[in-house]
Amino acid sequence: MLDQTAKKAVLRLFTYGLYAVTCAYDGNANVFTANWITQTSFDPPMVALSVESDSASLPIILASGLFAVAPFATAHRELAGALGKPRSRAGDKLAARPHTVSPSGLPILDATLGYVECRVTGRIVTGDSTLIVGEVIGAVLQGEGDPLTMREAGFKHSG
Amino acid sequence: MLDQTAKKAVLRLFTYGLYAVTCAYDGNANVFTANWITQTSFDPPMVALSVESDSASLPIILASGLFAVAPFATAHRELAGALGKPRSRAGDKLAARPHTVSPSGLPILDATLGYVECRVTGRIVTGDSTLIVGEVIGAVLQGEGDPLTMREAGFKHSG
Repeated sequence: MLDQTAKKAVLRLFTYGLYAVTCAYDGNANVFTANWITQTSFDPPMVALSVESDSASLPIILASGLFAVAPFATAHRELAGALGKPRSRAGDKLAARPHTVSPSGLPILDATLGYVECRVTGRIVTGDSTLIVGEVIGAVLQGEGDPLTMREAGFKHSG
Repeated sequence: MLDQTAKKAVLRLFTYGLYAVTCAYDGNANVFTANWITQTSFDPPMVALSVESDSASLPIILASGLFAVAPFATAHRELAGALGKPRSRAGDKLAARPHTVSPSGLPILDATLGYVECRVTGRIVTGDSTLIVGEVIGAVLQGEGDPLTMREAGFKHSG
């Protein structure tokens, strides 16, 4: 029997950053805050992102085969919290927030330190979520500062 | 063309913890320091781990179908560095270091905050590495303290 208390306690010792993940397909764009993200390869550079399988963004990412990952700066704790709400409740999360469009057509919030654009190369269903793997095909550094972490933000999304 | 300087700079803004990953099969056990790790699902609890495809540990993990992930404490920066060396150069990294054996038969260093045991459920080759996904089947909290992060340690294994 898995010790649920210990499981939660140990998984909450895992360290995460906070990122704005963006996607767009056929005029339908979205942004959400994610922390279950890691680089997975140096050559070629690749990134994995776990997305809830019932999220609004997963079908957009799979249709376009593209996503962007943009680390938040320490100053953007409130923004990270606001973008963590699902689109079904929060509405259009991009409309009121300054953003540009990346070479691949992905929305990029001004209020992030930079971004990598990734082309989806594979995916694997893991429990309640889908782990998407993508190759980094573009990168822009657009700000200065330290990246926001889950610990600093006081958010909990693990365990 | 991917901007290599921007790619490295943005990927180095990703936040990571430092973990002792352990494996054992048929009398052959190993430990290595890893940072490319993330939870991927709440229900069931699952974890993904990226391992260099030519590492000594990958065949052990795949043969046993098991691995453990144990967060280092902030006090264990030197240990995390030492365990980051490949077994081909470092020799038996477990022999001289106090450890116990988990219910699944995995070595667990005393000098970690706790661990989750994971049963491999899938994998996907991503560039130079293999991303392994596992379900958490056991968990023990064994110490107190804050988890060691890449940033605090001053290590660089991303970009």
